[in-house]
Amino acid sequence: MGEKIIRVNMSTLTTAVEAVPADWVGLGGRALTSTIIAAEVPPTCEALGKYNKLVFAPGLLTATAAANSGRLSAGFKSPLTGGIKESNAGGTAAQNLEKLGIKALIIEGVPQEEKWYSIHINKEGVTIKEDAEYLGKGNYELFKEIGEKMGKKIGVLAIGPAGEFRMAAANISVKDPDGNIRSHGRGGGGAVMGSKKIKYITVDDAGGPGVTLADPEKFKEQSRIFAKAMLDYPVTGHGLPTYGTNIMVNIVNEAGAFPVKNFRSGCWEHAEKISGETMHDVIVSRNGKPSHGCQAGCIIKCSQVYNDADGNFVTAGFEYETIQLLGANSLIGDLDIIAKCDWAMDDIGIDSIEGSVVINVAMEAGILSWGDGEGTYRLINEEIRMGTPLGRILGNGAGSVGRSFGITRVPVVKNQAIPAYDPRTIRGFGITYATSTMGADHTAGYAIATNILRIGGFVEPLKNEGQVDLSRNLQVATAAVDSTGLCLMVAFPALDVPECFTAIYEMINARYGLSLTANDVVELGKYVLKTERDFNQRAGFTSAHDRLPEFFEEPLPPHNIGWDFKGEEIDEFWNF
Amino acid sequence: MGEKIIRVNMSTLTTAVEAVPADWVGLGGRALTSTIIAAEVPPTCEALGKYNKLVFAPGLLTATAAANSGRLSAGFKSPLTGGIKESNAGGTAAQNLEKLGIKALIIEGVPQEEKWYSIHINKEGVTIKEDAEYLGKGNYELFKEIGEKMGKKIGVLAIGPAGEFRMAAANISVKDPDGNIRSHGRGGGGAVMGSKKIKYITVDDAGGPGVTLADPEKFKEQSRIFAKAMLDYPVTGHGLPTYGTNIMVNIVNEAGAFPVKNFRSGCWEHAEKISGETMHDVIVSRNGKPSHGCQAGCIIKCSQVYNDADGNFVTAGFEYETIQLLGANSLIGDLDIIAKCDWAMDDIGIDSIEGSVVINVAMEAGILSWGDGEGTYRLINEEIRMGTPLGRILGNGAGSVGRSFGITRVPVVKNQAIPAYDPRTIRGFGITYATSTMGADHTAGYAIATNILRIGGFVEPLKNEGQVDLSRNLQVATAAVDSTGLCLMVAFPALDVPECFTAIYEMINARYGLSLTANDVVELGKYVLKTERDFNQRAGFTSAHDRLPEFFEEPLPPHNIGWDFKGEEIDEFWNF
Repeated sequence: MGEKIIRVNMSTLTTAVEAVPADWVGLGGRALTSTIIAAEVPPTCEALGKYNKLVFAPGLLTATAAANSGRLSAGFKSPLTGGIKESNAGGTAAQNLEKLGIKALIIEGVPQEEKWYSIHINKEGVTIKEDAEYLGKGNYELFKEIGEKMGKKIGVLAIGPAGEFRMAAANISVKDPDGNIRSHGRGGGGAVMGSKKIKYITVDDAGGPGVTLADPEKFKEQSRIFAKAMLDYPVTGHGLPTYGTNIMVNIVNEAGAFPVKNFRSGCWEHAEKISGETMHDVIVSRNGKPSHGCQAGCIIKCSQVYNDADGNFVTAGFEYETIQLLGANSLIGDLDIIAKCDWAMDDIGIDSIEGSVVINVAMEAGILSWGDGEGTYRLINEEIRMGTPLGRILGNGAGSVGRSFGITRVPVVKNQAIPAYDPRTIRGFGITYATSTMGADHTAGYAIATNILRIGGFVEPLKNEGQVDLSRNLQVATAAVDSTGLCLMVAFPALDVPECFTAIYEMINARYGLSLTANDVVELGKYVLKTERDFNQRAGFTSAHDRLPEFFEEPLPPHNIGWDFKGEEIDEFWNF
Repeated sequence: MGEKIIRVNMSTLTTAVEAVPADWVGLGGRALTSTIIAAEVPPTCEALGKYNKLVFAPGLLTATAAANSGRLSAGFKSPLTGGIKESNAGGTAAQNLEKLGIKALIIEGVPQEEKWYSIHINKEGVTIKEDAEYLGKGNYELFKEIGEKMGKKIGVLAIGPAGEFRMAAANISVKDPDGNIRSHGRGGGGAVMGSKKIKYITVDDAGGPGVTLADPEKFKEQSRIFAKAMLDYPVTGHGLPTYGTNIMVNIVNEAGAFPVKNFRSGCWEHAEKISGETMHDVIVSRNGKPSHGCQAGCIIKCSQVYNDADGNFVTAGFEYETIQLLGANSLIGDLDIIAKCDWAMDDIGIDSIEGSVVINVAMEAGILSWGDGEGTYRLINEEIRMGTPLGRILGNGAGSVGRSFGITRVPVVKNQAIPAYDPRTIRGFGITYATSTMGADHTAGYAIATNILRIGGFVEPLKNEGQVDLSRNLQVATAAVDSTGLCLMVAFPALDVPECFTAIYEMINARYGLSLTANDVVELGKYVLKTERDFNQRAGFTSAHDRLPEFFEEPLPPHNIGWDFKGEEIDEFWNF
């Protein structure tokens, strides 16, 4: 295939091009990044030290004509959780890497000197450049200027001030086609990139070899089936394109799983103020974009551009989790101030899920008042951005805030913040949060699909029965999807529409000339989870870490049900 | 024996007196507190939550005429390490508890309301009093006023502002006979006491039953042998009484194990400025007390009272570890400013080992300059005391500072700071730091005794051979000594003088009418370590946590030797 591995060594400031080892040939995305981290990073190493690596890999279908296939996987040992981390994002970098024939970019070592660098990848190779030009600058300014200098199509990965400060909630931002921001959000990849003193990476695919298909006819046919299934399916064909992920507000609130005031209730009387339907109308009335794709080839377009009352840009890629956690869970019923906070977190380079739960816990600790939107914006845009002592506490995540202020109502698993779905009322999520190799992560096994949306069957959300099996099936499927380069949203039709699921592995077969079956997809997912868990066990994780925080034993209104899974019941998850 | 267990439940604000369960009858001190914590505290619970307990227990010989037997053991799940914690201290509380016939005080639960309390124990029983009088006050003021109100002999346990803030480096302070401060220093017991909203505890032994001896004649004889052995032995009879623990400066510097500038060298050209010999002369010239006992019945008197140039009190209980770490390891060659910092840490209620390494790491992070003594005092006495955001970062320990500022040169094991002996040059300490159930702790297995002082034999300090066995033997012996109520200093003669060792268990036999042998002492020590390790394993610890920080692989001048123990070699420790 002409594919290659690029290594960048920041200790020696050298680069190398390697052939793809035989073991890695059939892998892509999460399967590849997790394999490389598990093989090459000592599990007990310092996450911000010289032995950690930062690996980027496009998925198996990236840069083909397959719809929504442009996700980039980032792998590293997480400074937030202390375990393995895979975080994937849209944007332009994945497709550009793949078109250059780069199967993985592996960044190793840390510089000996206090100097900062940028990395530039194009058809000629890789260059490490000493580069302090954008230090201290936010992602929006960096992306705008790089786009102006190097062209709109350039792929860019960057860290904001949070990554420069090596904050554990720092993300790695990816430029989208319009210069807006997508993120490798979770787990502190930005801190790892900051520890290697890389402010940004550009990927220019001009003149690259591009992608060849083993069976172009079959690929065309299967990709057509795949796209049609997505467009015909209500969630991906209508719901997400119209309202974005924020369509979940009313659904989750109705289910009683809508975290309010740091997980004290599951239902909020002001939910309508921040709902997807409300947001859609606001965006339309202000000449924003209610629907926008984060990557070339996206047919769902769940992103959007949110303007202020004067029609000026405020933020883009404005997701349910951020809106819910800063909204109901902080008692801020004001989309405009939440949008400003979202912009600030993107610009500073903070995971907006971790950053939002940071605010919940800061309110719990009395650092600011419940419902204080302007105070929230100030904490993010002044304290975190400037790296003040309080900003360091906040920028290191919800667990850091809890420890610093000596409080125990801290919604984290493996020190990673729990997203905007209460695990007591969507109990499949509870199992996902508890067991995921990533720490608390809704994308690792999106249980609401089957617990509430009745996609891929139905498991009663309020009962313990069936949740472990559900979460296992979803986590296995997710690990496989994360390896393809496909956006996780494709799982909605794939779980319900047989020919959509078939099309995914048949596209891979057509791309590489393989003959994978449905079972191979499942086995790939299992392999990924087991590889990640093995790393975590070697890093010191045990089943004692596969637990929800103590306070979830409290009954949650309105269903008045607490978390009561026994440890041994949760541990059944790993019996496969 | 008429002994009893007192339970104080802070959730219900009730107290109870219980008979001693059969399993606990033969236990005291660390053996008892660790047994209770392991039996009654869920290992994965929140350390600052309602399921943690705080247990105090005098030792098996406490309040007898045995010299140096007045140590009090405190047990809890540590908010610093996340594992079990036993921290013991001198002062007056242990003897008073024992004289009241109290074998253990178990404090459970956390108050429902935002109110603070004090607890008062006397011959009538136990009282919980709502009490905000001393909130925000330092330990010195509290001890002085309580002593004036309740008499000089009163036993007092208290937390300073650090404990009120529930900082993970907060200690529990114990009043000594003169109103000075001893500390249950390590592991954040002050935060646990703060989480239970207890500012202080008084123990008044007036009219209590006192201690009875099963065989008074034998006890008298054995305690005489024991005391004579200590007085005749050079370390306990001359070195420690004359120079205090700070006698170690020249010895450790000579050995090349004297941490300099955050463990960058093992030898300091300015060591004389802070040595025990220098300190002795300064104290004498200023009418201080070069030798002072922290408890009734102490015959070593390694404490002291340090005055300023005008002859005014600055601090007491001024130990080698604090002086070394704030001195050489921070490049502050000034005993006077170090003494002020020591006073401030005692007054605020911060473990002065953790607090000193906090300063080392703060200098590493660029928060203040190397050698900045006044800046160090300001950080402690203003930032930590006031609980500012920076103070929260510092007050939560060296690991907290490292994480907050994204640095990796952080000398901690299990998140507890490494004390003032470099593990590369006294390699038995490396094994102790790595394997101790307590996190990095020199008192858990004081390897310098055999590695350098040639007490209890000799194991070459720079070689790996024999260190695992040495550390195991010392840790077993220490766990036993910590259960007797004897000060650990007695281990020096006990390791070398057979009749001294024999006298320890014969005094226990004479106290209780038992017939323990030397082997029983060893078995007790092993039981304690295994009980603690079992708790830690259930809390999620594995051998991955029994490792030194990565940076110790660097060769240390002047011996230029790095830490190169293999994991499996360290893990041999637990083969017993």
